[in-house]
Amino acid sequence: MKNISLLGATGSIGLQTLEVIREHPQEFSLYAMAFGKNIEKALPIIKEFKPSLVAVSDEQSRRALLAEHPRLEVIAGNEGLEVISIEPAVDVVVNAVMGSVGLQATLKAIEAKKQVALANKETLVTAGHLVMEKAKKHGVELLPVDSEHSAIFQSLNGEARNDIRKILLTASGGSFRDKSRQDLADVTLDDALKHPNWSMGAKITIDSATMMNKGLEVIEAHWLFDVPYEEIDVVLHKESVIHSMVEYKDNSVIAQLGTPDMRVPIQYALAYPSRLELPKSKRLDLIEIGKLHFSEMDQQRFPCLRMAYDAGKEGGTMTTVLNAANEIAVEMFLTGRISFLEIEELIQRAMDKHETISRPDLGTILEVDHQTRTKVLSYLD
Amino acid sequence: MKNISLLGATGSIGLQTLEVIREHPQEFSLYAMAFGKNIEKALPIIKEFKPSLVAVSDEQSRRALLAEHPRLEVIAGNEGLEVISIEPAVDVVVNAVMGSVGLQATLKAIEAKKQVALANKETLVTAGHLVMEKAKKHGVELLPVDSEHSAIFQSLNGEARNDIRKILLTASGGSFRDKSRQDLADVTLDDALKHPNWSMGAKITIDSATMMNKGLEVIEAHWLFDVPYEEIDVVLHKESVIHSMVEYKDNSVIAQLGTPDMRVPIQYALAYPSRLELPKSKRLDLIEIGKLHFSEMDQQRFPCLRMAYDAGKEGGTMTTVLNAANEIAVEMFLTGRISFLEIEELIQRAMDKHETISRPDLGTILEVDHQTRTKVLSYLD
Repeated sequence: MKNISLLGATGSIGLQTLEVIREHPQEFSLYAMAFGKNIEKALPIIKEFKPSLVAVSDEQSRRALLAEHPRLEVIAGNEGLEVISIEPAVDVVVNAVMGSVGLQATLKAIEAKKQVALANKETLVTAGHLVMEKAKKHGVELLPVDSEHSAIFQSLNGEARNDIRKILLTASGGSFRDKSRQDLADVTLDDALKHPNWSMGAKITIDSATMMNKGLEVIEAHWLFDVPYEEIDVVLHKESVIHSMVEYKDNSVIAQLGTPDMRVPIQYALAYPSRLELPKSKRLDLIEIGKLHFSEMDQQRFPCLRMAYDAGKEGGTMTTVLNAANEIAVEMFLTGRISFLEIEELIQRAMDKHETISRPDLGTILEVDHQTRTKVLSYLD
Repeated sequence: MKNISLLGATGSIGLQTLEVIREHPQEFSLYAMAFGKNIEKALPIIKEFKPSLVAVSDEQSRRALLAEHPRLEVIAGNEGLEVISIEPAVDVVVNAVMGSVGLQATLKAIEAKKQVALANKETLVTAGHLVMEKAKKHGVELLPVDSEHSAIFQSLNGEARNDIRKILLTASGGSFRDKSRQDLADVTLDDALKHPNWSMGAKITIDSATMMNKGLEVIEAHWLFDVPYEEIDVVLHKESVIHSMVEYKDNSVIAQLGTPDMRVPIQYALAYPSRLELPKSKRLDLIEIGKLHFSEMDQQRFPCLRMAYDAGKEGGTMTTVLNAANEIAVEMFLTGRISFLEIEELIQRAMDKHETISRPDLGTILEVDHQTRTKVLSYLD
């Protein structure tokens, strides 16, 4: 039995993690959970899974919880994320919170030598060097929770890292795969929110449409698998059946395939190094699908991908700027303040104006993150 | 440096094995080789690779060799295959001979705890239970040399065998993929010898056209990977890019992909568990290929595949009958004595008339093999 601490329990990944736990009562137990303010979603989770410890964002939410569960141990404030990441009884920490608050929890979980299942992109995009250094020092293997990195991780099973020639990330192309640059000028928020394959949150759906999501994944892959950017390629594969691939130096390519179901990579990270049944998930039927398509990824068509490569190769604080500028720009688009193509313009502007600091410490990263957000917001004034 | 003993040096797999050895003089050395009667092909090999020991099929060939290389150690007769399979200096035995003479050499190599790279189908099709029992007893892992089983083997790297749900063998469909049963009545030998993807010997090209090759592969997969026939499926995939796949119980599918180049699986078996560069081999370019197709394998359309499943499930000596009847029938087709569709008729007839002997010993297998060949030849009288 593995005791799980779930950070971000009421989000999309959090809820799917709970589905996996529910399917395997003999294997997994929800020992602790953290959420922001969504009390309505949290209450039935607490009732069903009976965690020993709950972290919430503020005192008001804490009181609301205690009103329903007077004997529950509840911690309020951001430090709650860290507390439930290092609890001695916890075996696996699932980090599925949004934003940079997730970073410090990841670092603490690594120090406490927990099995870390990582769905929080900021952790690696903004502070990959710190996280991987610490993971190496403490002998902790980070287990990716998105489908692409889980596919790469699985394609590396039993292989030697220095036999890798290339990592091939597949990209569905997002909502606007078939649109030209000209078409993109007029797209609406509703158009952008229609992802062809995956059902996800708004932020990541927009990131898929701009291809920034794939860019962030390139940066994550660089850190997770210790592979230079020159050895990471992106291939357009509209069916999302091959979730990603690894090419080895003998020209063999190993790939992981499946249906678009996030519970598979989530369960893989929880159960690792075992595999478990997942009866409610649909099996892959290649005969039904019939055809898989592959085509070239055009970095001119998707400048956000090129920016991500640029930021990654530049390194230091530049990826923090990329990520923070993107978060603010997407938020502006989601709230109707900028057009779709202005997202990339704002990010490029933030990157152009930034002077990179190499090998930043955690304080510097958080400061640059904060400054970038403020600056990008000010561009519209 | 690994010392290699190559059984079947002048055949298609043998020559490609030599290409791999040539590319890696620091890694591999040809210590011993065996061939049949093709002195012309063998002489330049001996000159280039300077093996310490050579086995030939008969005394006449031995003398012909000694005339050119008076100081070479040459053994004549079938026992030569066994001698060079157990030589103390040999690390890897590549068994690429045709027919059942290969079986005894495999058994001897296993007893001598050699790394065995297996391209000889008869070994597993006719005597899978004996070979696998012996391999288990001596702690020897058999390394498959054809592309499908190498793909499965690679897709199993780092995985637990009891996590397998299905093995998915891909089949190109062979020369007659797009023909109906009616069309097949009139096909010629020349038509049958045109394989769409792979350049191989005549026997295996005909076996691809009848789909018996895939049937034999199903039986091999059953033994190599210890998976029941119900968990082995065949999928038509005309591009032969995905060389085969393994579906795990969590719905993840792991696949190995590549260009159609036998040197890749040969080198994998030689270098295992390492991977080496193979610069002369073409890299896979999915973007250039563009599309991969998958469709259902119709066992009515390809009765040889159904017969192979039938024989495999029946077990005992039935797979020996399947294999021997097929070899004779294909030979008859290649020499113009029967039509394409008569191949399957002769095999079915031999199987229908055979009373299976369970768990046969080596003597019984060789006897049934011999009897079947004689019987099938007599059908035409």
